[in-house]
Amino acid sequence: MFQIHPQLLKDCVVVGRFKLCHLLMMNDRNFPWFILVPDRENISEIYQLNKTDQVQLTRESCYLSEKLAQRFKADKMNVAALGNVVPQLHIHHIVRYTSDPAWPGPVWGKLPARPYDKQGIRLMITKLKQVLAKELAFH
Amino acid sequence: MFQIHPQLLKDCVVVGRFKLCHLLMMNDRNFPWFILVPDRENISEIYQLNKTDQVQLTRESCYLSEKLAQRFKADKMNVAALGNVVPQLHIHHIVRYTSDPAWPGPVWGKLPARPYDKQGIRLMITKLKQVLAKELAFH
Repeated sequence: MFQIHPQLLKDCVVVGRFKLCHLLMMNDRNFPWFILVPDRENISEIYQLNKTDQVQLTRESCYLSEKLAQRFKADKMNVAALGNVVPQLHIHHIVRYTSDPAWPGPVWGKLPARPYDKQGIRLMITKLKQVLAKELAFH
Repeated sequence: MFQIHPQLLKDCVVVGRFKLCHLLMMNDRNFPWFILVPDRENISEIYQLNKTDQVQLTRESCYLSEKLAQRFKADKMNVAALGNVVPQLHIHHIVRYTSDPAWPGPVWGKLPARPYDKQGIRLMITKLKQVLAKELAFH
């Protein structure tokens, strides 16, 4: 039975569920930073998904990216499947600004995470509900 | 008319062409590092491609990732669309090893590029031909 990797659960807030993927929010106020985790066991690379799941992941990733870019007025989206530390397949979707503290570098390993307080998390979830409610089942 | 961004042409060797994407190889011996560039004008995000192109990109990206992982015996593939510096949509496909000089961090901005010599480039192209010839038109 599929379980989200414990390291992801430690670093993130579980937001909800698309048809294929769980949506997590990185608990780091430095960047609006979201992660899709396909609900499939023992997969560490996108190509290991079957072709139907590959297409569904693309659909969910593009939908999420577009809505995040609009809602958070991104200068650029960064979308990446790395997994060097956590092998369970997970795809980062990070809203980048030319004014953010890591720009133009990538975000990983640059700055210590700055966790949200409870109100900050609620505010982010409210913003997500405004744009993702059509496709996402919120927890 | 579509043209590959001059910065990509400066940093990479143009290897060939899939149905949708140009395949480039980063001229950096630190990592087997390849880049897909969809042959579409004025696109900086995957979600800006039409749905047919999104699926074709997924197909080409998964095919490339799987063949690279096999041929270069990757410990992990890193697949990423960043574009903070070069806005033209391009998707990195990097073969990672637990023994490589940036592991487990991401590769960007870590080490100065170590260019291949002519023989090194020929050797890499030969390796690619062994595994990609079915889908890729080599230049």
